[in-house]
Amino acid sequence: MPERVRVALIGAGRIGQRHARTLATRVPRADLVAVADAVPDAARSTAATVRLERWTTDATSLFADPDIDAVVIASSTETHAPYIIAAAEAGKDVFCEKPIALDLAATDAALDAVERSGVRLQIGFQRRFDKGYRRAKEMIEAGTLGRIESLRDTMRDPTPASREYIARCGGLFRDMTIHNFDTVRWLMGAEVEEVYAVGAALVDPMFAELDDIDTGIVTLRFVGGGLAVIDNSRRSGFGYDVRTEVFGSEGAIFVGYARETPLLHLSKDGVKSDHVSWFLDRFDQAYEEELHAFVDGCSTRESPDVTGEDGRAAMVLAYAAEAARRDNRPVRVEEFARMKHA
Amino acid sequence: MPERVRVALIGAGRIGQRHARTLATRVPRADLVAVADAVPDAARSTAATVRLERWTTDATSLFADPDIDAVVIASSTETHAPYIIAAAEAGKDVFCEKPIALDLAATDAALDAVERSGVRLQIGFQRRFDKGYRRAKEMIEAGTLGRIESLRDTMRDPTPASREYIARCGGLFRDMTIHNFDTVRWLMGAEVEEVYAVGAALVDPMFAELDDIDTGIVTLRFVGGGLAVIDNSRRSGFGYDVRTEVFGSEGAIFVGYARETPLLHLSKDGVKSDHVSWFLDRFDQAYEEELHAFVDGCSTRESPDVTGEDGRAAMVLAYAAEAARRDNRPVRVEEFARMKHA
Amino acid sequence: MPERVRVALIGAGRIGQRHARTLATRVPRADLVAVADAVPDAARSTAATVRLERWTTDATSLFADPDIDAVVIASSTETHAPYIIAAAEAGKDVFCEKPIALDLAATDAALDAVERSGVRLQIGFQRRFDKGYRRAKEMIEAGTLGRIESLRDTMRDPTPASREYIARCGGLFRDMTIHNFDTVRWLMGAEVEEVYAVGAALVDPMFAELDDIDTGIVTLRFVGGGLAVIDNSRRSGFGYDVRTEVFGSEGAIFVGYARETPLLHLSKDGVKSDHVSWFLDRFDQAYEEELHAFVDGCSTRESPDVTGEDGRAAMVLAYAAEAARRDNRPVRVEEFARMKHA
Amino acid sequence: MPERVRVALIGAGRIGQRHARTLATRVPRADLVAVADAVPDAARSTAATVRLERWTTDATSLFADPDIDAVVIASSTETHAPYIIAAAEAGKDVFCEKPIALDLAATDAALDAVERSGVRLQIGFQRRFDKGYRRAKEMIEAGTLGRIESLRDTMRDPTPASREYIARCGGLFRDMTIHNFDTVRWLMGAEVEEVYAVGAALVDPMFAELDDIDTGIVTLRFVGGGLAVIDNSRRSGFGYDVRTEVFGSEGAIFVGYARETPLLHLSKDGVKSDHVSWFLDRFDQAYEEELHAFVDGCSTRESPDVTGEDGRAAMVLAYAAEAARRDNRPVRVEEFARMKHA
Repeated sequence: MPERVRVALIGAGRIGQRHARTLATRVPRADLVAVADAVPDAARSTAATVRLERWTTDATSLFADPDIDAVVIASSTETHAPYIIAAAEAGKDVFCEKPIALDLAATDAALDAVERSGVRLQIGFQRRFDKGYRRAKEMIEAGTLGRIESLRDTMRDPTPASREYIARCGGLFRDMTIHNFDTVRWLMGAEVEEVYAVGAALVDPMFAELDDIDTGIVTLRFVGGGLAVIDNSRRSGFGYDVRTEVFGSEGAIFVGYARETPLLHLSKDGVKSDHVSWFLDRFDQAYEEELHAFVDGCSTRESPDVTGEDGRAAMVLAYAAEAARRDNRPVRVEEFARMKHA
Repeated sequence: MPERVRVALIGAGRIGQRHARTLATRVPRADLVAVADAVPDAARSTAATVRLERWTTDATSLFADPDIDAVVIASSTETHAPYIIAAAEAGKDVFCEKPIALDLAATDAALDAVERSGVRLQIGFQRRFDKGYRRAKEMIEAGTLGRIESLRDTMRDPTPASREYIARCGGLFRDMTIHNFDTVRWLMGAEVEEVYAVGAALVDPMFAELDDIDTGIVTLRFVGGGLAVIDNSRRSGFGYDVRTEVFGSEGAIFVGYARETPLLHLSKDGVKSDHVSWFLDRFDQAYEEELHAFVDGCSTRESPDVTGEDGRAAMVLAYAAEAARRDNRPVRVEEFARMKHA
Repeated sequence: MPERVRVALIGAGRIGQRHARTLATRVPRADLVAVADAVPDAARSTAATVRLERWTTDATSLFADPDIDAVVIASSTETHAPYIIAAAEAGKDVFCEKPIALDLAATDAALDAVERSGVRLQIGFQRRFDKGYRRAKEMIEAGTLGRIESLRDTMRDPTPASREYIARCGGLFRDMTIHNFDTVRWLMGAEVEEVYAVGAALVDPMFAELDDIDTGIVTLRFVGGGLAVIDNSRRSGFGYDVRTEVFGSEGAIFVGYARETPLLHLSKDGVKSDHVSWFLDRFDQAYEEELHAFVDGCSTRESPDVTGEDGRAAMVLAYAAEAARRDNRPVRVEEFARMKHA
Repeated sequence: MPERVRVALIGAGRIGQRHARTLATRVPRADLVAVADAVPDAARSTAATVRLERWTTDATSLFADPDIDAVVIASSTETHAPYIIAAAEAGKDVFCEKPIALDLAATDAALDAVERSGVRLQIGFQRRFDKGYRRAKEMIEAGTLGRIESLRDTMRDPTPASREYIARCGGLFRDMTIHNFDTVRWLMGAEVEEVYAVGAALVDPMFAELDDIDTGIVTLRFVGGGLAVIDNSRRSGFGYDVRTEVFGSEGAIFVGYARETPLLHLSKDGVKSDHVSWFLDRFDQAYEEELHAFVDGCSTRESPDVTGEDGRAAMVLAYAAEAARRDNRPVRVEEFARMKHA
């Protein structure tokens, strides 16, 4: 592996465009060499943004190119697993947006290909690279909080995504809560034993029509006895809301941020500030750091901070939560974790 | 009922002493006329604090006194129901600390006595009188948040109470979570249909030895579809922690307070403030307001803001949560709500 | 001096009523025995509020009463010095609202009477008893901030007082800034050497008509080299604003409070909270503590935390600032400090 | 002027390196074409960071290059005016770090050259581009605060710069306060009529040895009657401190930010957060926006948001403040403003 890493980007949608800019300008060791997207205009215009000549609608052509060291996959979910497999077989390191796949069989096929080939696979759980969350994890590992007893993790989008997106996203737990599942596993430093979940379609009738929910609460019991609760909504009514509280025997950590602009307005009506409006703003720094880590890891060959197994484990929790909610019963995670290679 | 209300206080422990001072000095229409406590020194010294001559170890003597209009019951839990019944039969209005009783049969007996006699019974859920919670309720009722969809309610004590207290308190859900049960019912403005609960003894082995838990998470589903989650711990590691978040279709309200003293210390180590350390400090204003409301109501005869039925409903939720936790299954509240007169 | 202190209150206006309630109900060792006010209704109704029978329009009658140990003077400013003198000559300890007098000659006459008689005189600079300010002072004295280098002290009323009040109050510096003068002297732990001041009538033309200002900035240079700046306005536009910043070689302390109610409202318009609206709310705890300290001191005979000399020193600074503003030049404080007995 | 703007960077020190990265990667219309620095290694390594081949130690060679449209001057202060003049004579637009020059004669010579040539000159007062300050200015201009009456503007570095830097920087007012002078002029929307200033060397004896101060307070009176106060220190003891308060007839705006990381740590010792540590972090977004604005303006030919006249006006205030401090008297700004071409 050369000192510089030649990276191709696959998928030039919202997050793909962000990754293109980051790779082109903020990751010193990365050379972004090509952009692929099934939509020609998307590929072309994203390449142009970063003054790159090479773009294609054929992602598979990139896997065959020996001058590409690694791929960043930000295309639609159903392509993740096939592209991971193709990249692995071509010996290219992979950064892939969550989820690996909506079903565990496809997930396992991708993980198997990665394991066989020895390439590195990093999953795009960007919260792990946020300054606040990273510092929380460091303090937990340093023992600052003593024994971790419980966690509260919340996430709300400002407004629901489009019907088209919701219809294909796999439902609240696999699409949105999956970030929280990863966060609570990571911060607790333990595996989940059992989950229970409730949900409701309160925000928009669309969710009920699509047999989905827009509001959910998941209770988790960890091996070792720790507890956690996650709550989500597809609509906050006020901005992007992501906050986590970690309670230990020696104190607590709250991670979360309210203000976007350092401005308070004081008037007869009270004191007013703004609020972070969107996850791309909230996690600006994290989206940059995760690609730094990925590209550096392509050289150092250290294990990624967020592995394919982490991606799978979060998806298993999503399955368990969905079963818990539909059957209205606590579900032991092993019911789903054991599904591998079944 | 005269314009001034002659009140006797029963129970001169920690909260009783607070009520004595409040009644003596901050509730203009109240005349605190007597203090009773089974422990003579407690009764005497509390009376002395408020320059009151009359104290007794025999609470029942107060019920027979025609010059007493109302009683405030802050004695130990097992005496609540008998004293409520005695007061009701003597035609005296009653303010009673939570819970009415640890079992529903005794609760119902007390409520029946109240109903037969026509006296007023107000339960000491002081959070309803806190400026922040009261304002939240007003905004909810004014429609500021639109439709209320979900709630997060948290409460942590700084450190566990004594083993002696824990052994007799009825367990986490009946002793501590009961405040949260009242809060979420009240803020949601709806009854709970089903609960699920998990718990663990993580803080202190004492809790396991007493077949109790020190950490708990309760999920609630309301009639009408709203959801809520409550989490509690017997030990925060940092102070007294009580915070509530209400999410509606048009925005959210967060109720909670961190600083006790208006002071920030900035140094090389960062920015530091203190934290509210104790519920008596956090709810100072609420403890005063609830007695104001009680004494005023003795004249106006308006229905109390927190009725005996509210006290019962919270206890029913505690029973349901305890069953849910022990059986590890969602429990429909009607299983316990129907127990009345069974 | 008996263990209990028999206190008479002189002056039943806004702050007098507050002191009446505090003395009657929150200061255990105080016996409030009489209320005097030139307006019979004010005296009578304030006495009634605290269930006190004795009231009078003749304050001087109280000085002659051997059963009164101490007086709290909250009457209009021009009466302060005569009442202090009368009380001192009668051997009664005195708590007096600021200022002792608007002119230094009357101030000195009062201080001389106090000195001759040996009674205690405490001035009502309540900020010194606020939890936040007191903690700041403790940390400064403990060396937590290292050497104190500079201070910023701000105070704004929500809206201007009445024309009648403004006309008689002595102007911005003697009426309002006097609190800040005391605060910066106290926190810096040093005397002021020189002041400069600017001011303007921006809030209301009334101030210019009365040859007064409504907005002022005072720069102070302390013996030893420390610097401070005070800014005031008669109208904040948002609530009561009192905040202080202390900068030392090892860090800083900010004292100040924004929220009255522990409630945040989050909506599409941003995040909103309320603001402390009035000094009687902001300094509720301080107004209680200062009387505690006064009454306790009547027994212990310890020097008051805020002496008559402190009251004089703040007034001297007000004079110097006024001269600086009118002459538009830096003024050495000794020009006024030396006036005593001149 | 072509659609893309070819920019050369002069000066590859701390802020020059930041500008290099920004121009190379975050300003879409900019083509960074060359880097100049008197120190070969600095020029070479900064160019390498942005994958640029062209670097030089001879800045003047860039002015002669017809393929360069604009220059960004971030070299040492004494070179600013000569480079501005050279660039202006070569017809190149100029972005220049503050100050234009430490003396007004050189400043005026540079401004004259700019005026004669018709090139654009933008000064690097980055605070004007900060989200918070920009929003404050918009609200002020929209009349949200009513009439602006007073301002408080504070700035503190975490620790003093090196003796070498301090010796050459022109002193506190010309080096540091100059940012505050620009901010208060801009936010007040009026010119300053008179200033008074005090200062002291409290942080480090070095400042006294260099006939400089490390702590300063400047009072300003504006045409129209508004007032402002600026305070500065070379050492905060806690991080980078920049906060501004604007008070108007209808309310106030506070601009300022405390936390760097969205993390609170709660423990027995209280609640702790971090603090923004450095101006390059605090104004990250502003440093990017100012170059966006500069490059866009090279095409649109609109007047810069921060002109050379703004740079001069701030320097005039620094001169006036320095005279006020040394003579210990209020100084009318016209004494210095009239110096032009004198």
